[in-house]
Amino acid sequence: MPSTKKILFLPGDGIGPEVMAQVRRVMDWLVASGRASFEVEDGLVGGSAYDAHGTPLHDDTMKLALAADAVLLGAVGGPKWDNLDFSLKPERGLLRLRKDMELFANLRPALVFDALAEASSLKTELVAGLDILIVRELTGGVYFGQPRGISDLPNGERRGVNTQVYDTHEIVRVARVAFDLAGKRDKRLCSVEKANVMESGLLWREEVTKIGTTEFPDIALSHMYADNCAMQLVRQPKQFDVIVTDNLFGDLLSDCAAMLTGSLGMLPSASLGEADANGARKAMYEPVHGSAPDIAGQNKANPLATILSFSMMLRYSFDMGVEADLIDQAVRDVLADGIRTGDIMQPGKTLVGTSGMGDALLAKLAA
Amino acid sequence: MPSTKKILFLPGDGIGPEVMAQVRRVMDWLVASGRASFEVEDGLVGGSAYDAHGTPLHDDTMKLALAADAVLLGAVGGPKWDNLDFSLKPERGLLRLRKDMELFANLRPALVFDALAEASSLKTELVAGLDILIVRELTGGVYFGQPRGISDLPNGERRGVNTQVYDTHEIVRVARVAFDLAGKRDKRLCSVEKANVMESGLLWREEVTKIGTTEFPDIALSHMYADNCAMQLVRQPKQFDVIVTDNLFGDLLSDCAAMLTGSLGMLPSASLGEADANGARKAMYEPVHGSAPDIAGQNKANPLATILSFSMMLRYSFDMGVEADLIDQAVRDVLADGIRTGDIMQPGKTLVGTSGMGDALLAKLAA
Ligand SMILES: CC(C)[C@H](C(=O)O)[C@@H](O)C(=O)O
Ligand SMILES: CC(C)[C@H](C(=O)O)[C@@H](O)C(=O)O
Repeated sequence: MPSTKKILFLPGDGIGPEVMAQVRRVMDWLVASGRASFEVEDGLVGGSAYDAHGTPLHDDTMKLALAADAVLLGAVGGPKWDNLDFSLKPERGLLRLRKDMELFANLRPALVFDALAEASSLKTELVAGLDILIVRELTGGVYFGQPRGISDLPNGERRGVNTQVYDTHEIVRVARVAFDLAGKRDKRLCSVEKANVMESGLLWREEVTKIGTTEFPDIALSHMYADNCAMQLVRQPKQFDVIVTDNLFGDLLSDCAAMLTGSLGMLPSASLGEADANGARKAMYEPVHGSAPDIAGQNKANPLATILSFSMMLRYSFDMGVEADLIDQAVRDVLADGIRTGDIMQPGKTLVGTSGMGDALLAKLAA
Repeated sequence: MPSTKKILFLPGDGIGPEVMAQVRRVMDWLVASGRASFEVEDGLVGGSAYDAHGTPLHDDTMKLALAADAVLLGAVGGPKWDNLDFSLKPERGLLRLRKDMELFANLRPALVFDALAEASSLKTELVAGLDILIVRELTGGVYFGQPRGISDLPNGERRGVNTQVYDTHEIVRVARVAFDLAGKRDKRLCSVEKANVMESGLLWREEVTKIGTTEFPDIALSHMYADNCAMQLVRQPKQFDVIVTDNLFGDLLSDCAAMLTGSLGMLPSASLGEADANGARKAMYEPVHGSAPDIAGQNKANPLATILSFSMMLRYSFDMGVEADLIDQAVRDVLADGIRTGDIMQPGKTLVGTSGMGDALLAKLAA
């Protein structure tokens, strides 16, 4: 009998709940087939948490997250909460989860599925077979640096301040994760910053270089300025294997890379903390897409990114690579059969809704 | 007799000198045809200035820049100077010019020339006719904010710090330039920040909104997060008219937008200061491409971006729109004739070198 995994479900806002519902079906199948045992708790985050409790993340939910073996998050945000105070915005709930769980390594694969290569806005030959992994630092940099805020100046103007700050260990630990992952792939790591303009970027470059030389001499390390990286992603994305970069550059570059695939509705992500003595790490998994309030509640959203996020959970948190492979293969098979939600619809294919995509996937798993 | 314009030439490093040489030919033609009168001085910047004077920009050169009616810059940087101290790097020369001349508004058009639409890595229909203008704040934000630097911590680690800071007037003045330019185009301005994460971005959004409402009610203003903007540029670039954003986001997004065109060797830029009582502004013009050390001195570089930067100078600094139009049209005609440098070469076209491209352009101008 497999050990029971405690998972916290945080569906969040917009399409979050309906895509998460499809994951439940996949989990039920794993349980029914005797492959796994799960204990699931549900919590609120983002706008829905604000509506219920007046805060985008209640302390009780934070406790559940810290106690869980892994967290699965849907998406947060929506126009309904756009005018809330900075500290109450839906995003703050997500950022608190990242920070308090110390999820410093954000893994964002940009993967082109064969059946969807033509969906990219890039020429097909430039993206067919694309498989990049962006490792984004997630608990430091300008997202959390102090001092920060808006203040009134004596001259009647206002001043807005944020601080980009990185200490050695913050750079080193995320670099190690990236080198490690590169070692399991094509053994090439590209580290990205603006060392020509920012001292924090220069420190980044120096520390990554040191770790590379001393601990990962077999990984080919290169360095690139962030502006050039934005260009190179558009020009020739397949030149990259693994990219490691800071929180803010990672935010832009991983979204840019995700869009190269043409199918944001397909992309999962993992956010990992430090491994403890038993090798267990805090972890949160979430689709890259947003809460898509315009189609929420209409059974139109693509659940595959969330299902693939759950598959990453099996792989990275529970060492269930076999089951993760089953799910990933089922996703490819469903696409090969021409089953499509609206966001990835192409002429001649079969349009289904959120639950219809779940049906098709379950049928593949059962087969 | 037209009044004499004082221009400072700063060819810089790599291919800088050879592309600037082609601009001289265009200037000579303007003079010979009685259309203009120029007084040109030459100076060093970047690695070549470091080699000559031990600094990437000598004070005397800075004085010349401040005294000139306009500055034309080639490009700075190269592997030769990669290991210099932060404060001596070629880039510091460029950054000092921007800062000391107070060139707060950086105009970066991303324009697809009809003859080159297929050079884009994006599908041709997504970029044909593309004409975006990115207005990047250039003298503030994390590029210049204090405190900054790398320090040793008591625990033996190091800390890298940079500060993103914007005051009201810095946001307002660049926003005015962007609104103004939008008014001469499609009357749509998109302001880009991370107001959901950074207070400096929130201030940016609020101040841009205020100026829009009070001073430019006829311009349609929208707001977008920087990560989403990186995605939307790749997904559907033609949705944009004018984009205004801060120094760091502008660095990445303008390079991303430039690469969408597929022909970096074609893109000019202008950096403008505040207009004085007579309407004159400090200004520097430079191609978007870098110093390309790999092909420097080989008569291979594309001079058109620098020539188009000179054309922007005529338009924005000297009110010589007629002459600027002549040059822009000559560039389009040369491309239509199939004349190409290596960077924009396509099957069936005629490959020329740097000076050959100059010859072709001069022939068009003379015709
Ligand atoms: C929602 C927002 C706070 C978040 C970020 O900026 O990190 C998002 O863009 C992401 O990339 O996960
Ligand atoms: C060379 C470098 C300092 C510069 C910048 O970062 O601004 C360049 O990338 C640019 O965009 O002009």
